[in-house]
Amino acid sequence: MPAHPPVIAIVGAGAVGGYYGARLAEHGHDVHFLLRSDYETVKSKGWSVKSIAGDFDLRPDRFHSYDDPRKMPAADLIVVTLKSTSSDQFDPLIRPLLKSDSVILTLQNGLGNEERIAELFGPERLIGGLAYVCTTRVAPGQIHHTFNGKIQLGEFTGTPSDRARDIAKLFESSNVTAEVLSNFRWGKWRKLVWNVPFGGLGALLDLHTDELLADPKGVQLVRALMQEVIDAAGALGHQMAPDLIKQMIPYTLEMGHYRSSMQVDRNENRPMEVEAILREPLRQARQAGVEAPRLASLYELLSILDSRRGAACPAVAGLRGMTKSE
Amino acid sequence: MPAHPPVIAIVGAGAVGGYYGARLAEHGHDVHFLLRSDYETVKSKGWSVKSIAGDFDLRPDRFHSYDDPRKMPAADLIVVTLKSTSSDQFDPLIRPLLKSDSVILTLQNGLGNEERIAELFGPERLIGGLAYVCTTRVAPGQIHHTFNGKIQLGEFTGTPSDRARDIAKLFESSNVTAEVLSNFRWGKWRKLVWNVPFGGLGALLDLHTDELLADPKGVQLVRALMQEVIDAAGALGHQMAPDLIKQMIPYTLEMGHYRSSMQVDRNENRPMEVEAILREPLRQARQAGVEAPRLASLYELLSILDSRRGAACPAVAGLRGMTKSE
Repeated sequence: MPAHPPVIAIVGAGAVGGYYGARLAEHGHDVHFLLRSDYETVKSKGWSVKSIAGDFDLRPDRFHSYDDPRKMPAADLIVVTLKSTSSDQFDPLIRPLLKSDSVILTLQNGLGNEERIAELFGPERLIGGLAYVCTTRVAPGQIHHTFNGKIQLGEFTGTPSDRARDIAKLFESSNVTAEVLSNFRWGKWRKLVWNVPFGGLGALLDLHTDELLADPKGVQLVRALMQEVIDAAGALGHQMAPDLIKQMIPYTLEMGHYRSSMQVDRNENRPMEVEAILREPLRQARQAGVEAPRLASLYELLSILDSRRGAACPAVAGLRGMTKSE
Repeated sequence: MPAHPPVIAIVGAGAVGGYYGARLAEHGHDVHFLLRSDYETVKSKGWSVKSIAGDFDLRPDRFHSYDDPRKMPAADLIVVTLKSTSSDQFDPLIRPLLKSDSVILTLQNGLGNEERIAELFGPERLIGGLAYVCTTRVAPGQIHHTFNGKIQLGEFTGTPSDRARDIAKLFESSNVTAEVLSNFRWGKWRKLVWNVPFGGLGALLDLHTDELLADPKGVQLVRALMQEVIDAAGALGHQMAPDLIKQMIPYTLEMGHYRSSMQVDRNENRPMEVEAILREPLRQARQAGVEAPRLASLYELLSILDSRRGAACPAVAGLRGMTKSE
């Protein structure tokens, strides 16, 4: 990180990028948001955040808004909060922001994004991050932050560094808890232990986290999927705490009536992060000799739904009263 | 079967029981229907059948309707077309119809129903049957028959018998193709090769048969599930034809835009035949040493949906425009 106040670019200012970027700007940092559909609203009205860490409004003169990365200044820190389904946009959206010493921080779910970014722009630029946060974009420029908020980050290659600690301090100075991980990939797999069951089952069965956990069969399947991910991680050298499953169930219940982002994507007929959250972990699990049959089925089933976007959950009211049999 | 014209009882006159019973009555047989919700309409207006084998209407003086099995005469042939989710009703619905030489013919999906009936009323009474038919109850008393229509039947214990051939002739004399199986359990498993993927995936993903087959990933998963059922059947001594999967895909495409009965049950928030079509086959597969991981996942996932009846496929319109992330 440079001696001067760093120029921070937020690439993909949705519910996650909007929240963290607004927190940084609220605390006086020089934040530049790249927006898409919400550009006009955010540029004219700013951000409005309702948060368990404190509500705040941010007038548009406190930050910079853009609808095109080519209009943005080169950035010291580029925070990537795009959905992994936009990974084909990494090059056109990120490259215009690069200078020789730009650092890229990813805050994305699933596996594979960091590898793609490292390949495009060099692994030495890359800090991997994890956002443990429940945020909802309730309207353009309006974010509701309901749970946790912690960021974990670590060097993509190698061990903890000064720059990783500097970025953590940047967030810590902005009312965001930030931890430096000694092993980023371990952290990735730990987060997958949550994302696979609650993202995958939530989207497939169209059930909120609390609905899944209200059913003993739901709890059983959540636990079984978590165990498959833990086994895969272990085979890859990432040992999880023995009580991780026991921790994650009450942690999830605390979230209340929560829709995972993958369930939201299904409901909204948007592409789901099936490749990053299910397929790539499955590929790595199998490469390490772990079968993970429930993860495999979840991937197969969701990839059918994903490729049939727009056809799921049809109105059936007109068919009521009919019965059929084969 | 007796020398006099047999008294035929249809227990569970829905889309399947209604169709076959109406065909038998159309051809002069003495048919007694046990109805539930459609009793009043059928008793006063009769049956109206649109069928690829020929449309016909049947006035109510051509058959007998009942809303209570205790009002019915003892029957020579009791045709059981109840959903397997009603298996706790076998005793109160069937026992009042029994005399010493009553024969029971089941026309149900999945495994386990025949065993329950055999236990209650004696295996020697039992003829197992399979209905290869697409019928839809479009309104009370109104049935639409759109595909196939063949019945296969065989002795529950032992080899082909005169009485099995007599029952087949009864149907054959009523415009219904009927075949006698030398091994009823083999036939059961053969039918499961269809019911597991199209019933199970159809219900879980809420996709019609043609929608599943329109997607290469759908076809792939259908085939993989079929293979698991075929492997299980093989391990239990029921060898399927080597080209069965290759036969069943175009056979299913011929059905057109078809909703499996399990998908209909899900859409209607009715109990699904998860136990008979998925769980009992899975149990037998595992007992025979076959893992069937996709069948296992399908069972686990559908049993969650089934136990959460009423909560699936919620209206999401009010939530549009929201995004979330964990």
